[in-house]
Order: sequence, then C-alpha cells, then structure tokens
Amino acid sequence: MPALKFLSLGGAGKVTQNMYLYEYEDEMLLVDCGIGFPDVYMPGVDILIPDISYLLQRIEEGARIVGLIFSHGHDDHIAATPYVLPNLPDFPMYGSALTAAFAEQRIGDAKLQHSVQVVKDRTPVKVSQHFSFEFLSVTHSVPDTKHIVITTPEGIIYHGTDFKLDPTPVDNRTTDLERITQLGNENVLCMLVDCLRIERPAWSKSESTTGLAIEQTMVNTRGKFVITLMSSHIHRIQQVVDAATRHNRKVAFIGRSVEQNVKNAVELNMLSIPKGMLIDKRNIDDFPPEKVCLIVAGAQGQEGSSLLRAIYGEHPILQLKQEDKVVFSADAIPGNELNYFGAIDELCRNNIDVVYPDILPDLHQSGHASEPEQMELIGLLKPKYVMPIGGQDRHRRLFKTRVAEKLDYKEKEILTPEDGAIVGFEDGGYKVLDVLSLRPQIVDGLGIGDVGPVVLSDRRALGQAGIVAIVIPRIQGEFDLSNIDVVSKGFVFMRDAAEVV
Amino acid sequence: MPALKFLSLGGAGKVTQNMYLYEYEDEMLLVDCGIGFPDVYMPGVDILIPDISYLLQRIEEGARIVGLIFSHGHDDHIAATPYVLPNLPDFPMYGSALTAAFAEQRIGDAKLQHSVQVVKDRTPVKVSQHFSFEFLSVTHSVPDTKHIVITTPEGIIYHGTDFKLDPTPVDNRTTDLERITQLGNENVLCMLVDCLRIERPAWSKSESTTGLAIEQTMVNTRGKFVITLMSSHIHRIQQVVDAATRHNRKVAFIGRSVEQNVKNAVELNMLSIPKGMLIDKRNIDDFPPEKVCLIVAGAQGQEGSSLLRAIYGEHPILQLKQEDKVVFSADAIPGNELNYFGAIDELCRNNIDVVYPDILPDLHQSGHASEPEQMELIGLLKPKYVMPIGGQDRHRRLFKTRVAEKLDYKEKEILTPEDGAIVGFEDGGYKVLDVLSLRPQIVDGLGIGDVGPVVLSDRRALGQAGIVAIVIPRIQGEFDLSNIDVVSKGFVFMRDAAEVV
Repeated sequence: MPALKFLSLGGAGKVTQNMYLYEYEDEMLLVDCGIGFPDVYMPGVDILIPDISYLLQRIEEGARIVGLIFSHGHDDHIAATPYVLPNLPDFPMYGSALTAAFAEQRIGDAKLQHSVQVVKDRTPVKVSQHFSFEFLSVTHSVPDTKHIVITTPEGIIYHGTDFKLDPTPVDNRTTDLERITQLGNENVLCMLVDCLRIERPAWSKSESTTGLAIEQTMVNTRGKFVITLMSSHIHRIQQVVDAATRHNRKVAFIGRSVEQNVKNAVELNMLSIPKGMLIDKRNIDDFPPEKVCLIVAGAQGQEGSSLLRAIYGEHPILQLKQEDKVVFSADAIPGNELNYFGAIDELCRNNIDVVYPDILPDLHQSGHASEPEQMELIGLLKPKYVMPIGGQDRHRRLFKTRVAEKLDYKEKEILTPEDGAIVGFEDGGYKVLDVLSLRPQIVDGLGIGDVGPVVLSDRRALGQAGIVAIVIPRIQGEFDLSNIDVVSKGFVFMRDAAEVV
Repeated sequence: MPALKFLSLGGAGKVTQNMYLYEYEDEMLLVDCGIGFPDVYMPGVDILIPDISYLLQRIEEGARIVGLIFSHGHDDHIAATPYVLPNLPDFPMYGSALTAAFAEQRIGDAKLQHSVQVVKDRTPVKVSQHFSFEFLSVTHSVPDTKHIVITTPEGIIYHGTDFKLDPTPVDNRTTDLERITQLGNENVLCMLVDCLRIERPAWSKSESTTGLAIEQTMVNTRGKFVITLMSSHIHRIQQVVDAATRHNRKVAFIGRSVEQNVKNAVELNMLSIPKGMLIDKRNIDDFPPEKVCLIVAGAQGQEGSSLLRAIYGEHPILQLKQEDKVVFSADAIPGNELNYFGAIDELCRNNIDVVYPDILPDLHQSGHASEPEQMELIGLLKPKYVMPIGGQDRHRRLFKTRVAEKLDYKEKEILTPEDGAIVGFEDGGYKVLDVLSLRPQIVDGLGIGDVGPVVLSDRRALGQAGIVAIVIPRIQGEFDLSNIDVVSKGFVFMRDAAEVV
C-alpha cells in the first residue's frame, strides 16, 4: 500500500471550494479550506463546504490532522474553515501574515477562537514526523500569496495554487523564481499548478497597468469618483489610493468586507494610506464631490452590496449624482453577467457615467497565470509529475495537451485524477487507490446541512411551475365535494384566475 | 398633434423581442415581430412576446395595421409572429426571400396559414396611402438581411437593425453602401441603428475568417468531425460544407432547426451542397468516421438539443467516440455560460477533443457591427436624428457618447427614448407624446398568458426555500392535534428528516 496519499476534498475540475489532503501513515496534512459557490441549479443554496467525511473516517481509524496550511487569503481558500473546525479535533494552522489575518477574521466572525501561525518565506516548518513545508512568494490578486513546498518521505510536492508571474507587481515582491529554479535541481516528485487560464495564449498583463487605467478614469471625473473592486484586492486598492492622492481626492471605504480587509492590510503595512487622505464614510458630504474617491464593495452587482444599494438609491450614506462616475475595476464572474451588467445598465438609465473593462480593458487584469506562465513555472521546476488544479475539466484537458506539446511530458506524467480519486505515491510512481463519492455540504439560510439532490430537484420544479394545493374535506369517511378549496403559489395569480377556480 | 408616431413594442434597451411600430393617422406599419428570452429571474418562462395591447387599442379606435416588414430571419425578429397573428386582423407581410421562408416556417409550425410577400432590394413597395418602403442589402449572421428605408409624410426613416459591414461576405453580397451614400443626399429624418457592439473599438472580422478556422480544426481530426453552430447561420454552414468537400467528408445535418433551415436555404439557392456530398443522418454509420462531417444543433448546450443528447449518450443516431472532434463555432450567449461550458466540460471528461472560440477565437465572428462600422454607416447616411436600437442601456448610453464625440451630433439629435415611449415626429422636430407601460406576454409550457410579477416572485421564493404544508384535521370545529401531518417539497428530504417531523 503506497505511503503518500493525495486527495482533493473539494473535488476535481473545480475552480473554488479548494481543500487538499496529503496523508502519510496516520498523519494528515491539509492545504486550504475554501468555500464553493452554487450555480443556478442549486436554488436557495448560499455556499458549499468541502466534504470532510473522509477525514472523520480516518480520525475514527486513529489518524490525526497534523496541520492546515493556507496558501492565500481568498474565500475559496480560507472561508470554509469556521464551518469545518467545530467538527474536527484541534490542529495548528499556518499562513503568511495577511493570509493569517484574513483567515482569523473569518474564524472570528463565526465567534470561534483559533489562531493561525504566521510563517515567513523560505523558512522550513516541521509540521509532524513526516511532513514539513516552506512558503515561496508568488504574485496573485491578493498580497502575500504563497506556493507551498511540501517535503514528504516520498519526495517533494510543489503545491502551486493560484498565481501569476507578474514582473512588476505593485509591492515589488515578484515570484521567487530563484528558489523555484533551485528546486528544479531537487527532483520534485509532483507539482500541482493553477491551470485556470490555460486558454489564454498571451502572458498576463501586470497588475500595475490597472493603476494607469484607474487614474485615467479619475482625471476627468466631475463629481464623486466611485470605484468598486474585489474587496480583498489590496494592491488594486493601493493603486486607487495612490491615484486619489495625486489628484487630491480624500479616500473613504464603504462596505463591510472592504473595510475589514483594508483594516487588516493597513495594520500589517501591506497597504499605505498617506496621512490625512482617509476620511470616515459618514463624513463624505463634508467634502466637495470632486474631492472624494470612494472605494465601494459590490463589484459583481451582488444583491445587498453597498454599491447595489447606492445604485437603487437605498444606501444611507452614498447618494449617486449625475456628475459622479462609477468605475467597475473587475470583470463579471462567468455566470453572473445578469447581476453585473444589470447594475451597469441601471446606472446608465440614471444617466450616471460608468466605466468598466468592456470599454476600458486595463481596468481589470486577472490574477491567474496564462498558458506561457504556467509553462515557465513547470519548466523551471522540472517536476517528475505535474497536476493541473483550480480549473474546470476543459482547462485540465487543455493543460494536458499543452504540457505534452510544449514541455515533452508524457501522458502518464500529467495527472488529472477524477473527482474523489485518492492518488497514492510510492517509490517514484503513482496509482489511483480508491475513488470516493464526494458530496459537499451546503450552507442554506442560517443552517448547514445536507440538502441533497432530491430537495434541489424539488426546488427547481417548484420554481419552474409553482404549486397548486387542492383541499377536499373528508368528514367521517366521506369527501365533501361541495366544499373544495384551491390554494396556489407561483402557478397563476389567484385574483386573475378566480373564474378558472 | 404630431403626425408620425414611433413606438418600440418590444421595449427599449433590449437586444431581443424586436417589434417596432410606425403610425401615421390611422395607418400602422410594423417592423419585425420577434421573441424575447427570459432570464433566471423568470423561472418556468419559455419565451416572451411583445406587448400588442397598444395595437389592439388603436384598432378599437379605428386604426388598421397596413403591413409587417421583416428585416431578417432570426427568431428575435420573426418568431413571435404566430403568437400575435391570431389576435389581429389580417395584414400583408413582407420580407426578403430567405426571411420570408423562415417566417412562413414559424407560422406554419404553429398550424397557421399566412404567406409573406417576397420583396427585392432597391424596389419601392407602396404599403398604404402614407407608407412605402425599400429594402437595402446588408451583411449579418443570416443571409438576406435587410435594412429598411421607410418613406413617410414626415420624411425618410432608415430602420437599420442588425448588421455588420463585412467587406468579404461568404456570398459576396456586401452591404449596399452605394444606395446608402445616395440616401445621404436625401435628408433622412431619423436613422435607427444596431448599437449592440458599440463597446468594441475594432472593425468586426469578416465571416470568411471562420471558414479558415473551421478547416484548420477539420484537417487533423481522426474520427468524426462534429460541428455545432447557430442553426440559421447559413454562411457558416456553407463554409463547413466547403471544407468538408475539400477534405472528402460527407455531410449530414442533425437537429430539427438546422435541418429545416438548410432545406429552406437550399431551395432558394442560398446554400450550395455539391452533388453526392449530402448523406442522410440515419446513414452516418455506413461511412468511416474520418469520412463524415456532422453539423449538429445545440451550440449553446441547450437541454434537449441534439448535441447535448449526444454528449450524454442519449442520441439515437449520433454516438461520440474518443477519436471524434467536436467544434463549437459559437460563443456562449451572455448568461448561458453554465450550459455552454457544461457541455464542453462533459466532453472533456469523456476524453473527446473539443475546440471552441476561447481556444481558437476565429471559430466565431459576431454578426454585429463594432463602433467604427456604426459610425461609418451614420456618416454615410447623414440623418438628422439617430436612434440606437438592439442594445441594452449601457450600449445606448455609450452610443450617445461616441456619436457625439466622433460625428458631432448634439445630445438632442441622438434619441434614446425610455421603455414604452411614443415619439412623435412633425415638421422636422420630435417630442415624446406618451409613455406606455409595456408588459410582454409570456409563453409558459404550452400556454400563453400573463404570468405577472406576483407569480414569478412566488416561483422564485418556492425555488429558493421549498414548501412545508402542515395539515391539521378539524372535526366539527375541533382541531385534532394528535393527528398532524407534514408534507414537504424542496425543504428537507423527508426520509432524512423523519425524526424532525
């Protein structure tokens, strides 16, 4: 029986819901613990949580979790933690400084108390008898993102989750290609690598270019400059702050997520706001509109977000006027076009200037590596095996084709295990040991539980057709047909249909 | 009271559901009669039909419909006709040859009998005392698309719906810029123009380029070459047939819509299939896989489409094998990414080669004019007023900005009437006369009717939360609490929740 086992607890061919297990004898090392997002086929479901039943089973059998390492601070890598922790024995958690702060924020929001140990780059941490790891700095759309070099008795695993190779990042901390090149001589057994944007043939553009585009839209804004972006994108926020400083606009943050993230980043010196530039959101009206820059949460046009409430005139603080400008510094997440463009269209109906990447492409740059960056990293690291992660099945398949074509890997050397597969590594080889049937937990309203396929299918049917209930009294065994009542919801509007009934 | 009235019956700021009214005294001239597509906020709704209640009201008042002119054969311009005709007195309908055939097909499918008069280009048709019109040839993603020059007592209206300026169209019939240039000297009162792709700064690429991309994917296909595309895209189909001919693959069509459209196009000599190239879909297995090219409906991964059934192994004729290749010669319609990429991902899971525009962009070119093409057409025509149509509110607003910037129109000369607005033209000026509250009819299952906002809101609520019915018997005025029954659907799975109940 092979000694090192690997399993993606969040499933295979998924972008979000990241959670990975490395297992050696009775030691289980976890990487990331993120939420997933439901699609339109899961009505009423808020978020998805990775299936930890395999962990629970192994704990029953005497195994233990030796640690959980966070790669970076995005919710699809950290935010399932508070849902999972109460069901598991305690274990240490590790992250870079900002990631630890973000993860602790999520854990604290759930009224739990667990701290995350801050680990420095290039500093090996011995987690247990069989596992140790080291962080390497990489560039991504949240600062302090790391790749993880995991040393195991079977060899080195390079856990290369979300990244891009940005030559000119906003904080000047480029990807640690020096250490990666060194590792290229250390016989890495298997490299996991972010394949999400394998379809893109051109090297991704630097995050720095968004700063220029943002400043360009700021220059000719007559009223308030309102910008929305991913609330964890501290480098984007830094560039907005810098542009605002140059153009004498005070900065305020509006929206719980962005306010929290900014607070954490400022405390860690990862975001610098010049003295006197920051104003409280409740005081914006004390300044002339042309002297403020508002960074507002809601870049996807989410219901209930600060931006959407402002757009519909329902925000207590932020009123949009015709001389203001709203800038979307984010693309629509695929599948969310309706909300995203709905928000933009509503602004246009109200004659408010709005600028978004479809008009000015540099307003957003992806945080993920394109095909040549992925190839570059693999080429430097020269692992024996390579495994695409963080992409859907079409990305995994294309990755396989490209790595084979461009880097001369053989098909067997590129691992694309199916959903739930446990891969065992031993003596330099690998095989699939078992395939579990993973079933993510669902967070639905205030509860967490197992809303299975039958319930979801019923919900879809109800949502498509509505219901009609026909109530026939039955008195002492006899149906009273003279007294039938019909109740309907979502079928036809009862008042209109009175005569049908 | 102004003499010429204009109203978009399908609403403003919409891409689909095209239906326009021009009214002079008691004469009402219609342009197009297309369906709209519901979004995820309208669960269970199949299609939307323009609101014709204003027409019915005007008919009551003594007005009459003098004609309906179809601009081209897309469903969002013709397919509402069979739903609308039964509610209206007879009137003549006009279209180009292919458009007439497509419209008659839709009408016949609904078991109605109405013919559409075929009108040639540059040939004035006198529709009534006050209206006459002329067709001009333009390029678009269905052959035989026309712009409509409508002569009214108040001046010329140029109805410039969906088009692009393709310098090298597949059938060599370029847009009639000569006649458009002539019209530039005839004081056109108002030009309506397709603004959908105003966000694109570069001239659209010619449809001819897709043929090269398709052939490139065909060349190295080992098994069956399976391609899916918009089923009315006869020029795209022609290019597939041409490539198949060059590479000795017999051609078969699979899917009702594509089979019908091909039949109509072949009869009108708008699609040419060399003798001996066409095979019946039931005979594909009589040929070696590397000798067939299958053109299959379902380019959006629609449920029930031939392609999707084949992908899931449920098609009676088309079985996909690992050496086959599936080519998507269409982009995802915004909002439909889940179905579209879901189909592609499923193919990838089954190890079938799939190529799509995200990998090979030239596999699809839009049929809509980019910004410079829109400006070119307006610049040639030099209308007094210009009105963007066929786009959402963000497109209309950007159009206004661009036309003002680049062609020196004043804000008042660019019309973006709100939803339901009746615009009156008189003595070379215009004003908004009234704003109607338009309410599209809904086709839902087999019926057509007015499923209002309450019903849709109930459906959304049911779909999000499910239902629980609590039945408490009441016998002779007394509730029998010992005998409560609980029924649920979509709430929790009853078997799992037995103990809760």
